Amino acid sequence: MVLSTPIRSLSEFLKLPETKPASEYIDGVIVQKPMPQGKHSTLQIALASQINLRGEPQHSAYAFPELRCTFGGRSIVPDISVFNWERIPLDENGEVLNRIEIVPDWAIEILSPEQPTTRPMDNLLFCIRQGTSLGWLIDPQERLVFVFQRDRLPETRTGDDRLCVLPAIAEWELTVNHLFHWLRFG
Amino acid sequence: MVLSTPIRSLSEFLKLPETKPASEYIDGVIVQKPMPQGKHSTLQIALASQINLRGEPQHSAYAFPELRCTFGGRSIVPDISVFNWERIPLDENGEVLNRIEIVPDWAIEILSPEQPTTRPMDNLLFCIRQGTSLGWLIDPQERLVFVFQRDRLPETRTGDDRLCVLPAIAEWELTVNHLFHWLRFG
Repeated sequence: MVLSTPIRSLSEFLKLPETKPASEYIDGVIVQKPMPQGKHSTLQIALASQINLRGEPQHSAYAFPELRCTFGGRSIVPDISVFNWERIPLDENGEVLNRIEIVPDWAIEILSPEQPTTRPMDNLLFCIRQGTSLGWLIDPQERLVFVFQRDRLPETRTGDDRLCVLPAIAEWELTVNHLFHWLRFG
Repeated sequence: MVLSTPIRSLSEFLKLPETKPASEYIDGVIVQKPMPQGKHSTLQIALASQINLRGEPQHSAYAFPELRCTFGGRSIVPDISVFNWERIPLDENGEVLNRIEIVPDWAIEILSPEQPTTRPMDNLLFCIRQGTSLGWLIDPQERLVFVFQRDRLPETRTGDDRLCVLPAIAEWELTVNHLFHWLRFG
């Protein structure tokens, strides 16, 4: 699931071709993300779409799935990276940059079956220490979400608990049950 | 790995015979802990012994492996529960009680391969919200320790990082490398 290769520098790592699933550079080690499966993939696209449905019309926030973010000595690919609109990194034509070198405002990781939670959790803690204001660790198997915020113990959210979202889309009322309801088809 | 059985009340659960591995009662669900394997077992006994080597002579703290602790509506069995000496629950003969109904001062969970991290992490967060002052989540595979303390974001400790221990044995200098070194035999 997680393959570690010999240590290279971050700049060397960034010159390597991208892999599928994406690889991350963490404390001198290259780690490949697990291959996304059904529930992971469904939650990733459903959640990112729902965030954008709320953030895009009012130009307040935008969610990117599988976006490489390089900052603070790591190069990571959160399952979903959400930026407040004014922080989306743009080039001179107003188009999104390819190389993202700032922290997302909201980072979301979705666990895959049998994937150790350790790596995604450590990446979320890293993001928050680097300036991300909100982190979610979603466990589809246990139907719970850990919510990470600065200087606070993470909170466990289950059932009808309302989930804390980015202030930019604060009017959105999303519960844990609602989130996992997106897994149901037909 | 994790088996959920139909919902019973906590008092009903406490009347059931103990299982091996132990079962926990969490939010109306009964969950059996994974069967401990080599690394888990080694770290559990080594760490508990080392804590007692420091805490017992000076009557400052004592570590119990696999102790059922029932409080705040859950009945859980941390891999190691450490109590400050004066908080060890005793009967009229000065012997330790069988039924422990207070929070440990320091709760330690050690991950097993392929065990979801979610349950032990949620139990640690629960302990801390209920009054436990220190929590460790040890991942032998990734060689890291998450350290949980009240009103703080968990910290990731690796390599030569020194681990925060209970104030009762604060003179103990233990690094992450040292901890995982106990896995080596011969």
